[in-house]
Amino acid sequence: MSEQRSSVGRSERFPAEPWCVREVGLDQASLAQSESLFALSNGHIGVRGNLDEGDPYGLPGTYLNSFFETRPLPYAEAGYGYPESGQTILNVTDGKLIRLLVDDEPLDLRYGDIVSHERVLDLRRGVLERTLEWCSPAGTRVRIRSTRLVSLTRRSVLAIRYRVEPVDRPVRVVAHSELVSNEEVPRQSGDPRVSAAMENALEPVEHGGSGLRALLMHRTHSSKLQMAAAMDHLIGAPDGKYMSEHAAHPYWARITAATQLEPGEHLELTKFVTYGWSSQRSVPALRDQVSAALTSALVAGWDGLAREQAAAYADYWAGADVEIDGPVEIQQAVRFGLFHAYQAAARAEQRAIPAKGLTGPGYDGHAFWDSEMFVLPLLSATAPNAAADALRWRHTTLDLALERAKTLRLGGAAFPWRTIRGQECSAYWPAGTAAFHVNADIAVAAARHLWWTDDATFGRIYALPLLVQTARLWVSLGYRGDDDRFHIDGVTGPDEYSAMCYDNIYTNLMAAQNLRGAAVVARRWPDDAAELEVTDTEIDNWNWAAEHVAVPYSRSKQVHEQSRGFTEHEVWDFEHSYRNDEYPLLLNVPYFDLYRSQVVKQADLALALHWAGDAFTAKEKARAFDYYERLTVRDSSLSACTQAVVAAEVGHLDLASDYLAEAALLDLRDTHHNSKDGLHIASLAGAWLALVAGFGGLRDCGDQLIFRPQLPPGWQRLRFGVRFRGQRIHVDIAPGNVTYTLDGAESVQVTHRSRDKAEDVTLKPGKPVKRRWARVKPLSPRPPQPVGREPRGAL
Amino acid sequence: MSEQRSSVGRSERFPAEPWCVREVGLDQASLAQSESLFALSNGHIGVRGNLDEGDPYGLPGTYLNSFFETRPLPYAEAGYGYPESGQTILNVTDGKLIRLLVDDEPLDLRYGDIVSHERVLDLRRGVLERTLEWCSPAGTRVRIRSTRLVSLTRRSVLAIRYRVEPVDRPVRVVAHSELVSNEEVPRQSGDPRVSAAMENALEPVEHGGSGLRALLMHRTHSSKLQMAAAMDHLIGAPDGKYMSEHAAHPYWARITAATQLEPGEHLELTKFVTYGWSSQRSVPALRDQVSAALTSALVAGWDGLAREQAAAYADYWAGADVEIDGPVEIQQAVRFGLFHAYQAAARAEQRAIPAKGLTGPGYDGHAFWDSEMFVLPLLSATAPNAAADALRWRHTTLDLALERAKTLRLGGAAFPWRTIRGQECSAYWPAGTAAFHVNADIAVAAARHLWWTDDATFGRIYALPLLVQTARLWVSLGYRGDDDRFHIDGVTGPDEYSAMCYDNIYTNLMAAQNLRGAAVVARRWPDDAAELEVTDTEIDNWNWAAEHVAVPYSRSKQVHEQSRGFTEHEVWDFEHSYRNDEYPLLLNVPYFDLYRSQVVKQADLALALHWAGDAFTAKEKARAFDYYERLTVRDSSLSACTQAVVAAEVGHLDLASDYLAEAALLDLRDTHHNSKDGLHIASLAGAWLALVAGFGGLRDCGDQLIFRPQLPPGWQRLRFGVRFRGQRIHVDIAPGNVTYTLDGAESVQVTHRSRDKAEDVTLKPGKPVKRRWARVKPLSPRPPQPVGREPRGAL
Repeated sequence: MSEQRSSVGRSERFPAEPWCVREVGLDQASLAQSESLFALSNGHIGVRGNLDEGDPYGLPGTYLNSFFETRPLPYAEAGYGYPESGQTILNVTDGKLIRLLVDDEPLDLRYGDIVSHERVLDLRRGVLERTLEWCSPAGTRVRIRSTRLVSLTRRSVLAIRYRVEPVDRPVRVVAHSELVSNEEVPRQSGDPRVSAAMENALEPVEHGGSGLRALLMHRTHSSKLQMAAAMDHLIGAPDGKYMSEHAAHPYWARITAATQLEPGEHLELTKFVTYGWSSQRSVPALRDQVSAALTSALVAGWDGLAREQAAAYADYWAGADVEIDGPVEIQQAVRFGLFHAYQAAARAEQRAIPAKGLTGPGYDGHAFWDSEMFVLPLLSATAPNAAADALRWRHTTLDLALERAKTLRLGGAAFPWRTIRGQECSAYWPAGTAAFHVNADIAVAAARHLWWTDDATFGRIYALPLLVQTARLWVSLGYRGDDDRFHIDGVTGPDEYSAMCYDNIYTNLMAAQNLRGAAVVARRWPDDAAELEVTDTEIDNWNWAAEHVAVPYSRSKQVHEQSRGFTEHEVWDFEHSYRNDEYPLLLNVPYFDLYRSQVVKQADLALALHWAGDAFTAKEKARAFDYYERLTVRDSSLSACTQAVVAAEVGHLDLASDYLAEAALLDLRDTHHNSKDGLHIASLAGAWLALVAGFGGLRDCGDQLIFRPQLPPGWQRLRFGVRFRGQRIHVDIAPGNVTYTLDGAESVQVTHRSRDKAEDVTLKPGKPVKRRWARVKPLSPRPPQPVGREPRGAL
Repeated sequence: MSEQRSSVGRSERFPAEPWCVREVGLDQASLAQSESLFALSNGHIGVRGNLDEGDPYGLPGTYLNSFFETRPLPYAEAGYGYPESGQTILNVTDGKLIRLLVDDEPLDLRYGDIVSHERVLDLRRGVLERTLEWCSPAGTRVRIRSTRLVSLTRRSVLAIRYRVEPVDRPVRVVAHSELVSNEEVPRQSGDPRVSAAMENALEPVEHGGSGLRALLMHRTHSSKLQMAAAMDHLIGAPDGKYMSEHAAHPYWARITAATQLEPGEHLELTKFVTYGWSSQRSVPALRDQVSAALTSALVAGWDGLAREQAAAYADYWAGADVEIDGPVEIQQAVRFGLFHAYQAAARAEQRAIPAKGLTGPGYDGHAFWDSEMFVLPLLSATAPNAAADALRWRHTTLDLALERAKTLRLGGAAFPWRTIRGQECSAYWPAGTAAFHVNADIAVAAARHLWWTDDATFGRIYALPLLVQTARLWVSLGYRGDDDRFHIDGVTGPDEYSAMCYDNIYTNLMAAQNLRGAAVVARRWPDDAAELEVTDTEIDNWNWAAEHVAVPYSRSKQVHEQSRGFTEHEVWDFEHSYRNDEYPLLLNVPYFDLYRSQVVKQADLALALHWAGDAFTAKEKARAFDYYERLTVRDSSLSACTQAVVAAEVGHLDLASDYLAEAALLDLRDTHHNSKDGLHIASLAGAWLALVAGFGGLRDCGDQLIFRPQLPPGWQRLRFGVRFRGQRIHVDIAPGNVTYTLDGAESVQVTHRSRDKAEDVTLKPGKPVKRRWARVKPLSPRPPQPVGREPRGAL
């Protein structure tokens, strides 16, 4: 096991611990990265891990899911159907600020001495803790301890407990607890993956409060959204002696508590902040909403909130935790990922799950297809309510998708490539609008969720229209070729180093699942389907197209093609790119050159091997994996996890293990150098896929759950659970054997596979079932990656 | 012949006259179009046909070739290698204004009554004449006659003779002659083909003058160009009695002449305006330059300038005129086109020939490949100095093209898709940077010019480096495929409804000519080639690539492919687009749908049939023409002329005749509804190609000139001339026979073809040669076009 550890490498900054991420000291050069890592969220509110006192910061950030401003999308050369308006998530009123004056000197870690500083993200309890001992430039020492949480049980509540005490001599302290809107944000780079700057986006509507309570209300100029932020406080001082002040202005509000502390005494400030926003509700309604939430939080008190929080996370972990007996770094990273993926969605409640969650402004706060293809597989199996909510959000945008399809002269619904509210915000159509696979991703996620939960209400009301309207899109996009196959031309698949492809294999196979899924739900709920004017002929057409979908294959190369003709393109000069330090290629190479070459940014055909595995034989999978590994540079974070899944399936367990590490450690190690803009939620969720679908061999493509257990080399154990139709199934993989346990009342039949052999296994309540497994024998040696693009987890 | 006339249709607005374009009355709704049609230019200065008095206007416009402002090119999603800065032609200081006060009422045609109004563009003399009788709202009648010219012989001079006289009673007149900078320009539409708005682009540098002379100097903010405009006047009044005033301000200057006129008397104002600009010369240098030009113009006087102008045009027409005995509308339109194409280039002198000439701000004043492929074939054969200058301009931008290629990670030089000064200004790379054929177009134009002129100095100094550096580009862009062919992938051909194609047939065949041409000049001037480090191996590579270039052909469809796989795409639903009024498709249909379909915006394979005809048999040409006619919608103005040429070659003379009319009448009839933004110089020059290469059958692809004469149905005569290596050859086609005449001292051998038979004919000075010709028998019936997209000339 120690070998494994070293193969993953050590992080000095975040020591490996199974249930927390601890930062010892303060790396001021990497503040923005740690702000992302230490971000707290409940899917509705998100606060970056900025220091309590605000300064210094990497990137201040407080977000409310879907609270955005619109901005014109500029085109030097316009074109038909280009979206004119973009949406950018706003940094809203900052409620996490607590500034401290120590004997008249502001506590600012850039001055004086940091005697000790530690931050701990407690994954089990869902809180961020900080301890600090600071010596001011004048030599005064104070100890500070703060704990911050964004409540899972109270959607609008952020709470902070902040405590300061002198170390060795009496000290005067003044604590300012603030609400600040329109914070200055540092200028962003030219990298297209970061966000647009929105300055002074919040216009004042109302401000007020009294005593220890303050409220600020603002609205946005173009998107016409209104928000309210309110704070109230409990203050504990020696003998209750302290002085307080109240100040509220249009752009900021402040509560001041001042006192004198002797060694052994402390000032404790408990700050409750509540947020609300709406595009419709009135000012009084919003004002009352945040006030009511505040009062309720005060009633619960800090301990009440912290208890609720721990209980809510305990419930999540009971179903979602993955235990490994392997490298602690991986154990930590996987739990870190499960934590953030859940945080991003838990209380989103019919709002999107953005690519960065609510941990940073990257990608303008937009949601992409990765919610459905990387995050929802995890959530459907571990937190089904959150998954259903995310799909219900898509359903609320169906009218916009129908309209967009009409604009594009297509049938059915065309969901946006990137969006906050549902409108297409992609300004580069070859890698946006043309990436129609997002529609199958959404539809198949809905079908998958229905399959996992068997929630008929969800199926009838949400899955059915999503599947039907996207099926219509595919029928209008594709055509019956002379070869009697169903072709889909001119679209862009997941690999963003190709565009406008013919018969992208992933798109085609996912479209087929979409079409087949639409036929199934339309037959299951014929009355609802009839309301959508679905006819028998239409269902027959869907089934025909699904059965006859083109699956491009190169006979000369004896391998499936990512898209028709792909394997005939020139192979990229990887040597040259390596020598000239051109990675990531999107920043250093023109698109035209990428598009015409055999170079793959991210799993594309590999995604098809995973999610449409039935379309390939084992031999074809092995051959395809081998071929595309040599071309895939993983300039996208949406790649390593899928490569891990397929590597495990074809028997390259060491490679799968390396990719697992790359996916899981991406943000903790900042391997893409942009964790500062927010975490890569899909990659974090993808680490779960790498473990569960990769080593666990979980597949949900048949009538029952399929497992094909294996273990990474050197691991002694991998244990995970899934929620399946209201019950829990635990899978406990040990070297050579696996134990399946049902946690529920009704027997469930699953498939246990070992290599090519499959066996039906009936799981009964309270009766664990043990089976043997043997590792898959790879049909070819471990394939190499392009030079310099080996898995980063192994470094 | 009368039948022919009616088939072309009548224009009420511009009656058909062989040597002028006359507008009777004033169509205020179409002012902007007539301003383009009546624009005067010498390739250095361009003035739109705005009314003398400025108001009303469609679009005020005064341009100096290459006097532009830069502007940031915005991208909502940036990408590597995207140009960051655009260039937009500026509307410079307006010197053509002469405002008149008639008994205290401003002459404005929107008020009072227009008794008569006529404007005549005199193609033979190169002047715009205007006569006007106006009755003021108070009932005062005046007659005005003005004549305007932009001098061919004096590059910096615009001159106007303006005369006003009372009709029936004494009248007080005050004439204001003005210079006005930063005129207000109406807001432009969202159509990507119009220009970007540049407001208040001119910053004052100096103003001054005295007496009847005034001067304004300005500079631009970003592009750092300085310009000077100066005016001086000769004033004729009864008994020399008039009062004058002088006023000069930073943004405007005004000379006032006031007098009282009795019936029979007149006030005559002769206005001389001179322009100069520079990015380098000092303020005093520029000031002196325009002053000197003014003095020189005053010395010549109006009559001197007008005489020089007539002589210069007489010289041009002697070599360039095309006479037809056919529809007068066509005779007029062809001369109109020859006039404007020449105007656009005559004194450009190492500046670009923009797509709109200097007739309007369309396309931001950019030059594209159409200069080389549509305008230069005309100029090399009729005004070789102007053609050489245009190519020398490209040569001055070679350093920028070498740099651009480096940015794109390519060898040699990559010329811009659209530019004023030489920098790439295309902000949509799939139809810009990817359209690499512009490089072959430039190189082949240089080779062609060398062939026509045999100007060794031009060849050695200009053609050689242009050919060599572009040959290097092709070698780096293309690759040797498994089939031992030279392939060029991922590029966009002329047809802008396809993009990022594999082996675009036009691009490939032109690249082959480019490569072959480079090898020829490198062998001819080995010392100069050696200075460019050309080696024998490199020349061998060029020749290998040229010989082995891939020429895509569909065996199943028995037809050449516009690009590899093109004939397998879905055929566009033309019916649908017709029913739903979707033309031009670029404004009503998303690109992704166009790119993946068989729908052709403009001649692409047809261009290959014309310019690389040797690569096809007659049967292949006929088959290809037939196939692509059914797919070509001609949403571009760069199409009809080429289709005319190929239609004539394959024997569809009636169709060729229709396309000739479409190309020639495009602006006079405003068939693309955007002549207001400037004329389509390439289409106007293309009408000459339709006649000379189409019906005249001129080809310049062998060792000597080839003619294959035919006549449009019903025509009695087509006569044209070309300048070939310092001599003139006239071709006079009559029904059934043709007469070749040499106007020069040395015998020339040409090829006379009739159908498939070719005969060498030696032309001797003073000895016309007469030959018979028979019309080509078409191998298939006249092909149909997509519904609703029949040639517009025939309507």
